[in-house]
Amino acid sequence: MKSYRKELWFEVPQRRGFVNITPEIDRCLRESGIQEGLCLVNAMHITASVFINDDESGLLHDYDKWLERLAPHEPTAQYRHNQTGEDNADAHMKRQVMGREVVVAVTAGKLDFGPWEQIFYGEFDGRRRKRALVKIIGE
Amino acid sequence: MKSYRKELWFEVPQRRGFVNITPEIDRCLRESGIQEGLCLVNAMHITASVFINDDESGLLHDYDKWLERLAPHEPTAQYRHNQTGEDNADAHMKRQVMGREVVVAVTAGKLDFGPWEQIFYGEFDGRRRKRALVKIIGE
Amino acid sequence: MKSYRKELWFEVPQRRGFVNITPEIDRCLRESGIQEGLCLVNAMHITASVFINDDESGLLHDYDKWLERLAPHEPTAQYRHNQTGEDNADAHMKRQVMGREVVVAVTAGKLDFGPWEQIFYGEFDGRRRKRALVKIIGE
Repeated sequence: MKSYRKELWFEVPQRRGFVNITPEIDRCLRESGIQEGLCLVNAMHITASVFINDDESGLLHDYDKWLERLAPHEPTAQYRHNQTGEDNADAHMKRQVMGREVVVAVTAGKLDFGPWEQIFYGEFDGRRRKRALVKIIGE
Repeated sequence: MKSYRKELWFEVPQRRGFVNITPEIDRCLRESGIQEGLCLVNAMHITASVFINDDESGLLHDYDKWLERLAPHEPTAQYRHNQTGEDNADAHMKRQVMGREVVVAVTAGKLDFGPWEQIFYGEFDGRRRKRALVKIIGE
Repeated sequence: MKSYRKELWFEVPQRRGFVNITPEIDRCLRESGIQEGLCLVNAMHITASVFINDDESGLLHDYDKWLERLAPHEPTAQYRHNQTGEDNADAHMKRQVMGREVVVAVTAGKLDFGPWEQIFYGEFDGRRRKRALVKIIGE
């Protein structure tokens, strides 16, 4: 069994944003030399997500608006977590809706994807350097 | 390390529906001959889910109603994604709530499940042929 | 390839509660002797979650309140599932928002975590003995 590990770093300039990281994950997979296995990609921070969906700008806008409706940033005082001096309780909730991680099949040295699957890093408390982890195991 | 791959095809006749795919995944696992490992099952489309829950018709009805409340299909013009000519933005959201994939432990050649765990394909934009992927790795 | 399996048992005294299980998972990983691989932790029940987030009591309070807003326990008659004699339909929904499982990278014999990642068992229908499964594969 082979294993491969890499950290990807991000600094999203706004509080919230979505970054298509599929090309980076493709590059990791080639670097790993793994042909058959599983590829885990997870946010290493608890106010960010890694998820798979469509790279369509209208949809990413809709996600942002929808997540704000499900877990609004303001008023920040509605969340007890923010009494710690943080203002990011909403980001912890948005991240649960979108998920921490994805596991992708590796087949014949490729990410085994349907026609529109793209991997995103979803940032809900940006404006600082944060990381995602790529771990691939297989042969 | 052994690895196994199979695509499962679905055509749900309505816009939304839930299909219990546990028997198909059991069959895949037997076919794979894998005794110890991990089994990934994921939707290959971004308006569908694979998730694990109870096969109880009242609950599946409740899920549908609840997802419609969290991310209503109509009015379709509320979503910018639908300006592309699609009417399925809500399906992209429902799928995030229910999840893209499940990872199931394989132990002694069986899906290692609690008493009520069943694997479902959740369709949120049906009436066409769509796929899920089964990838099993182990020994 | 090595594989390791363990069941963890819980009895949360209230209907809902969150338990930090990171120390137990650390112990499992040491017991497994696995240095490189993947660690799956999943609820074996369909009204409970395993998720990764911050161990901050204000946040856990916020999660509980927020999940009650997204999928209220009462009135229990709003859910068709509860016509079966259950009163836990809301728990099946809360569990979908928080997720069934996490997959964690194992690197150099450790859970490969960012600075604040902690693994939680999230109970939404407690007051009875329930289980989570730990499955680790690797080398």
